[in-house]
Amino acid sequence: MPAEAINTKDYLGKNKRLVEELLNQYLPSEDEGPESLHTAMRYSVLAGGKRLRPILALAAYEYCHGDLNGQDLPIHYAMAALEMVHTYSLIHDDLPCMDDDDLRRGILTCHKKFGEAIAILAGDALHDIAFNLMAMTNSIQAVKELAQALGTKGMIGGQMADVEAEGKDITEKEITRIHQRKTGALIRCSVRIGAILANADQVLLDELTTFGGKIGFAFQIIDDILDIEGDQKLLGKNVGSDSKKEKATYPKVVGLKQAHSKADRLIQDAIAIFDDYDDNILKNLAQYIAQRKK
Amino acid sequence: MPAEAINTKDYLGKNKRLVEELLNQYLPSEDEGPESLHTAMRYSVLAGGKRLRPILALAAYEYCHGDLNGQDLPIHYAMAALEMVHTYSLIHDDLPCMDDDDLRRGILTCHKKFGEAIAILAGDALHDIAFNLMAMTNSIQAVKELAQALGTKGMIGGQMADVEAEGKDITEKEITRIHQRKTGALIRCSVRIGAILANADQVLLDELTTFGGKIGFAFQIIDDILDIEGDQKLLGKNVGSDSKKEKATYPKVVGLKQAHSKADRLIQDAIAIFDDYDDNILKNLAQYIAQRKK
Repeated sequence: MPAEAINTKDYLGKNKRLVEELLNQYLPSEDEGPESLHTAMRYSVLAGGKRLRPILALAAYEYCHGDLNGQDLPIHYAMAALEMVHTYSLIHDDLPCMDDDDLRRGILTCHKKFGEAIAILAGDALHDIAFNLMAMTNSIQAVKELAQALGTKGMIGGQMADVEAEGKDITEKEITRIHQRKTGALIRCSVRIGAILANADQVLLDELTTFGGKIGFAFQIIDDILDIEGDQKLLGKNVGSDSKKEKATYPKVVGLKQAHSKADRLIQDAIAIFDDYDDNILKNLAQYIAQRKK
Repeated sequence: MPAEAINTKDYLGKNKRLVEELLNQYLPSEDEGPESLHTAMRYSVLAGGKRLRPILALAAYEYCHGDLNGQDLPIHYAMAALEMVHTYSLIHDDLPCMDDDDLRRGILTCHKKFGEAIAILAGDALHDIAFNLMAMTNSIQAVKELAQALGTKGMIGGQMADVEAEGKDITEKEITRIHQRKTGALIRCSVRIGAILANADQVLLDELTTFGGKIGFAFQIIDDILDIEGDQKLLGKNVGSDSKKEKATYPKVVGLKQAHSKADRLIQDAIAIFDDYDDNILKNLAQYIAQRKK
């Protein structure tokens, strides 16, 4: 195994543990009221997952030489916030009137386990607590970045377009726009927030924004590919569900082979943003996204 | 009609128009994509309503001598944000798995008009745009206040407890806790944000916090009373629905007569916070809440 691969695996393992600790710390306890809601929130957030968004934020922060000394750092609040909004979006997307999924991260979806009312409120509460955490960074810019990435020009707009595209024939341009918003916006925002909290200058921020946009788009294409080729056990969710729901996916629009080469090209373009000799964890994370099986 | 009453009516009328203008300006256009989502958001937000929360924020801001010169003032962003989160909460509360209401502000509820998927996403998007607007005040404290008022210790916690209390016998202490969170927290937060944006000192902020807490609690008791005694046409929603759903309400727990006197006492206590000779619009708004028929 090349040194680089070990390095990435260690980095992911170490920081996945950090994210779990932060989430556990910042989520309200199940012993505090409203117990049922806190239990549902913790169930969905602490169910595992790659924790990619907070890890990308941290990697961007480190790349921009952000300070990592001390406890309760702004970047830590931001990392927890990013994973919480991601989980909120999954809980709402899984609802019967949306994607109607029963399985997520290998366990029952929130509404299957706790009922729809609690699932909707748990999502709302995570959405909210994420903004409180992001405000605790004391960076008004970070709060704005998050709100804009989640809004109708970002994630929610993408989810809406995704629901509306079901069963329809759409173009490559349209599926690109859906993916860039549905998944790409939050991933790009994670990278940007890491850079912003590290006080990156505009040139660096622009570079990382391009990087984040490319890996975010690639991530969703690979997600679509895994729904066709993936291993249900590894993924922790049902495969073949996109096709069953007649969802608009990248492989459906351009074919599986083209989808693979598009994802590869995006990852190569993302990596090319950095100097050839500049070995860094962001490059490695882009490669991890390209090779992921879950 | 006494001079004071005319004054309040004019103040409410003028500032309701201001709120409508701000909402119209800050909501995304129906012509921009995703059109269906923007249409649903505008439908629910622009359906009328008392606009009490933004007007209270403005009144508190004025009471604390906040600057009103210029366009696109921080207080204007905050006012629009407060009304948008209020509407988001109504859209989600009206859903079939929650209160299952068909009528709101005299028209069909969002999910009855546009379906559940769009209603959930429209609520999510309003929740989100509200944080973007609040961040545009450039006051990180205002963002934190909003997030905390909406969270599991505030509005969502109250809504959860409200759903769980249906069909159960609860105590006066419990219904008080539900009301203080479900409705009280956002009303108190509106008053506090007005004061914070006007740079009020701590003594004044504490006074207004007590005032906001009392009128917020009174507001929900009167809401419960109007569901029994109110005029359906004036209210724009079905009356008797609390009793049909076996909801825990203040009149149900302590009796109608006691509920009336509790609301009166809270409003008198709220007014008593101000000096006897200090005629101000906050006093008048408290009286308006006590006398409201819708």
